[in-house]
Amino acid sequence: MKEFFKNDRFAASVGIELLEMAKGRARAKMDIRKDHFNAVNIVHGAAIFTLADLVFAVAANTHGNMAVAVNAHISYLKAAGEGTRTLFAEATEVALNFKLASYTVQVTDDRDDLIAIFQGMVYRKRDKLMPTQLPPTPG
Amino acid sequence: MKEFFKNDRFAASVGIELLEMAKGRARAKMDIRKDHFNAVNIVHGAAIFTLADLVFAVAANTHGNMAVAVNAHISYLKAAGEGTRTLFAEATEVALNFKLASYTVQVTDDRDDLIAIFQGMVYRKRDKLMPTQLPPTPG
Amino acid sequence: MKEFFKNDRFAASVGIELLEMAKGRARAKMDIRKDHFNAVNIVHGAAIFTLADLVFAVAANTHGNMAVAVNAHISYLKAAGEGTRTLFAEATEVALNFKLASYTVQVTDDRDDLIAIFQGMVYRKRDKLMPTQLPPTPG
Amino acid sequence: MKEFFKNDRFAASVGIELLEMAKGRARAKMDIRKDHFNAVNIVHGAAIFTLADLVFAVAANTHGNMAVAVNAHISYLKAAGEGTRTLFAEATEVALNFKLASYTVQVTDDRDDLIAIFQGMVYRKRDKLMPTQLPPTPG
Repeated sequence: MKEFFKNDRFAASVGIELLEMAKGRARAKMDIRKDHFNAVNIVHGAAIFTLADLVFAVAANTHGNMAVAVNAHISYLKAAGEGTRTLFAEATEVALNFKLASYTVQVTDDRDDLIAIFQGMVYRKRDKLMPTQLPPTPG
Repeated sequence: MKEFFKNDRFAASVGIELLEMAKGRARAKMDIRKDHFNAVNIVHGAAIFTLADLVFAVAANTHGNMAVAVNAHISYLKAAGEGTRTLFAEATEVALNFKLASYTVQVTDDRDDLIAIFQGMVYRKRDKLMPTQLPPTPG
Repeated sequence: MKEFFKNDRFAASVGIELLEMAKGRARAKMDIRKDHFNAVNIVHGAAIFTLADLVFAVAANTHGNMAVAVNAHISYLKAAGEGTRTLFAEATEVALNFKLASYTVQVTDDRDDLIAIFQGMVYRKRDKLMPTQLPPTPG
Repeated sequence: MKEFFKNDRFAASVGIELLEMAKGRARAKMDIRKDHFNAVNIVHGAAIFTLADLVFAVAANTHGNMAVAVNAHISYLKAAGEGTRTLFAEATEVALNFKLASYTVQVTDDRDDLIAIFQGMVYRKRDKLMPTQLPPTPG
């Protein structure tokens, strides 16, 4: 059951760890490393996007059908500066239709301040996920 | 002059290479590696976002003032499947105001097919970029 | 105090009524009329956007500084069909910075089903709103 | 053939006129009226959205299948001030897949300045449009 996440080598290489998962929901964290900072020493927007994207993908794939992202919108609300040690992301399902589903993700820091809001939509394929593609049990 | 990009350790770790840069424009490529694929063997949405985000950031920082992303929207138009060897991204400035600027990024594959469209907005700070923070000369 | 809304002739012409307002928040309703439906007999996306946009603008202008929209993203989650009599929109402030602020708007129908989610960002000008431009007391 | 647009009573009530239409494309204009301005005397964001949304919907419905908007993103690039007499919008198809299609819309003013950029996605239903629901011949 951990295979989906194991197979998400991109998220893994960025240092993201899945914490919780349930139907239509997921939560993860990213311990901040030096290579997460950009040239002006705040956490890279693309690193924050990658964290949000992972919980979005896991949440969307909890129903058994293969779900692929069709678009996403992210607003950066507060810069995550040099003191940041961990960022957390939590995805919530806001709509689940036959072919489309929508998720909101909130990214927060150690102090529980809101860092970014993410809105993503998936297209739900007819294909069932293989056991090795299922979202993992966190841990 | 290559320091800005050198300092973008996140983009560098993902294997992105800057190809061209001019006022309000930038072009980069990402040679596809195994860790760019997701569990269903298409190039990871967050890897595509990271590529688009890099040219967006470089283009926005070509004017000398520090520019920080405030939000971004990406639409995935065509899946980049297993045969994909390289993705390219090109950013164009669509508006440059005193405090805000907007960019459109097109991501294409080896066959020049459109893979994703990205729309990003930056807030332009009063601070000038330090020499070590300037966008690099590509190459 | 009702002048801001009175002066929003566009929202008024669409039949939107402001219900509540507080610092960083606003709630409004739109009683559905025949001209709100599109060619396929669901409530027009642009009418839903206009409702969401009004509470976004009112909420953003509750702080006294003139706030102008810089971008917005809307996801349509459920079609509002022929039986729909009223749609409601509620804006919540998710970030308030010196120059920028962000708002989330939820649009719901009579049955409290979520119809659309809207994410909007404003640029906050130095100019103070004139008394005649202030958001109105609802009613 | 003009029925689709005739049936778009919302766009019609806003004063939008369709100018051109072809497979995957559409162009329209909106002559600016007093009720298009907001409390701070620039053209209302929701009026601009409505104009962009109309060409998006017409372009998406040129293929015969009923297409419904699933989400849209708009960036306001330049304020359309009091001197504005007409705004134009042009939609271009950037992707057409089996179930989803994406469109970019540019909104320009009399001086051909870019006022807004809009990115929209539709879900393409199996249902064919009835003759009375087809996009109109412009004119």
